[in-house]
Amino acid sequence: MSATIKSVAEYAGVSIKTVSRVINNEGTVKQDTLVKVQNAIAALNYKPNKAARDLAGRDNYVLGYVYDNPNAYYILAMQNGILDECRACGYELLIHPCDANSHSIIDELLAMVESARLAGVILSPPLSEMPDILSALDEKGILYVRIMSGEEALGTKHPCVLVNDFRAAFAITEHLIKQGHRDIAFIAGEQKHNSTRERQRGYLSALQTYGIDVQHAHMLQGTYSFGTGVEKIKQLLAQSDRPTAVFACNDEIAAGALFGARMEGVDVPSQLAIAGFENSPFSRQTFPPLTTASQPTAQIAQQATASLIQSLQSRRRGGNTQVGASHVFVPELVVRESTSR
Amino acid sequence: MSATIKSVAEYAGVSIKTVSRVINNEGTVKQDTLVKVQNAIAALNYKPNKAARDLAGRDNYVLGYVYDNPNAYYILAMQNGILDECRACGYELLIHPCDANSHSIIDELLAMVESARLAGVILSPPLSEMPDILSALDEKGILYVRIMSGEEALGTKHPCVLVNDFRAAFAITEHLIKQGHRDIAFIAGEQKHNSTRERQRGYLSALQTYGIDVQHAHMLQGTYSFGTGVEKIKQLLAQSDRPTAVFACNDEIAAGALFGARMEGVDVPSQLAIAGFENSPFSRQTFPPLTTASQPTAQIAQQATASLIQSLQSRRRGGNTQVGASHVFVPELVVRESTSR
Repeated sequence: MSATIKSVAEYAGVSIKTVSRVINNEGTVKQDTLVKVQNAIAALNYKPNKAARDLAGRDNYVLGYVYDNPNAYYILAMQNGILDECRACGYELLIHPCDANSHSIIDELLAMVESARLAGVILSPPLSEMPDILSALDEKGILYVRIMSGEEALGTKHPCVLVNDFRAAFAITEHLIKQGHRDIAFIAGEQKHNSTRERQRGYLSALQTYGIDVQHAHMLQGTYSFGTGVEKIKQLLAQSDRPTAVFACNDEIAAGALFGARMEGVDVPSQLAIAGFENSPFSRQTFPPLTTASQPTAQIAQQATASLIQSLQSRRRGGNTQVGASHVFVPELVVRESTSR
Repeated sequence: MSATIKSVAEYAGVSIKTVSRVINNEGTVKQDTLVKVQNAIAALNYKPNKAARDLAGRDNYVLGYVYDNPNAYYILAMQNGILDECRACGYELLIHPCDANSHSIIDELLAMVESARLAGVILSPPLSEMPDILSALDEKGILYVRIMSGEEALGTKHPCVLVNDFRAAFAITEHLIKQGHRDIAFIAGEQKHNSTRERQRGYLSALQTYGIDVQHAHMLQGTYSFGTGVEKIKQLLAQSDRPTAVFACNDEIAAGALFGARMEGVDVPSQLAIAGFENSPFSRQTFPPLTTASQPTAQIAQQATASLIQSLQSRRRGGNTQVGASHVFVPELVVRESTSR
């Protein structure tokens, strides 16, 4: 027999309404009452999902996650982070992958919000970085939260979670330089992602800081895929002046580069160092494991969802929806064998 | 300017209602009219999503996908297959990962269907194989489709898509036997999945067919994870009578086994052959690439979704919801270098 909101209220000696306020993070509960309710929830192992919805009545408790990204692990980690927060607050999640370049993208998103009666929308790059989409949502009064690459949130009226790709890419490049490398190639993913440009900026800034000239023939452009890694490493290894290290814009490219290097008979790390970005599960599973930057994607997604739900609750109480400062995450350098000296 | 249902109707010389019938696969449109409308849709590059929803009025056009599975690529492929069909028919998708072992799982699923006003539910293993869940959904009149491992659909009143794991596992084991192996280890995933038991049955049946004794010390039990592969291969290689081949129950286990073998200085395939199952993207990306069984997960998911939507449309017309025979997919053997002689 699982716990109900009623049993939690009885256990804590408070009203059902108070328990509901705690579950919905309404912020109007006194500290000692809050602790009592939280203890009761823990003691009874109470799962608030259903109750939160029962209390919600006619309110809508479905959020939408809209994305255009082919990276399986990124999408899964995003979904997991969003779902964790949804579960804690009694929300369900609708997913809507789409083509950011489609010229009917705005109609598509507005139709989705309306037909599924969404309470709010979570946007990840590149959609979160497209002004037309944001103004269309604004015009319809649809609440959203953005996850973006950058150091500060420009022109945002809505909650925003920032990922400081610049600083993380600087740290990876600096690590390679400190391992003695002077000729470090860069393999980029799609330029439509701001994160690509930020990572490239971090790479260039580190080279400049250490007085190293940029080798333009060693800066290559591709997609965020294993195939790009395989193809571009072959191109680099065919040049007369081979780089001694490669910074790949994500782990999939890095894994492809590792595979391609092995096909060419080049040993990693003794003949070529390779670093990735994102700390995908498989970055630990390549042989040798990959140096990378740990991007806490699930945590970023959870923070974004929490900010969106806070806005929703604020709006339901008739308050300001532009609540909460923007949050910044800096991916951390993770050194593994693929860049050992 | 994107095409509208009205422009399609004008182009085809039919009524808007007829276009709507075609979009919703209502099956009440004459063959030559159907062709006219399909040609008009193609000529105008018409995207029916929004229009289908506009016409849908008060009907609900959101499906739910419920799963308990940690395999990132499986989940993504399932989602993609479902979304392809949803998009074609004007549906949106809600996702609800859950813990199949939770004792409030039934309440949780019923609350989800109600609060998000779902039109129907797609169930993958192990949820699709749990009679309690199915009868609870039946009782509430909730439409669902099941994806299951097996050779025939037992006791099903609802549409069902079957995956013949038995036959595919037989084929993998037979391939290893034909490569000259007599001592083939088996590393299983969780037994709660019927597919695990079916794959094991296929393995044992192939050994029996070729008159090979089962080595019980070489049949190991784990989870569908890279970690299980690393751990179990070490266990096998520590035995005095090492197997010469390993059949891992999925590609993640196989990739872990490959990693573990390399850590132990054992060459694949010359000293040990390794085969996986599922044909995950990374099964082509290991070094050497893995022999596996190609399970068309996205196609399976798309077929399941099409069957569910057919049931829904049949119900809307007041017809029988138990439409369509069950479909069977047999994963195909894909031979790669990890099992070369």
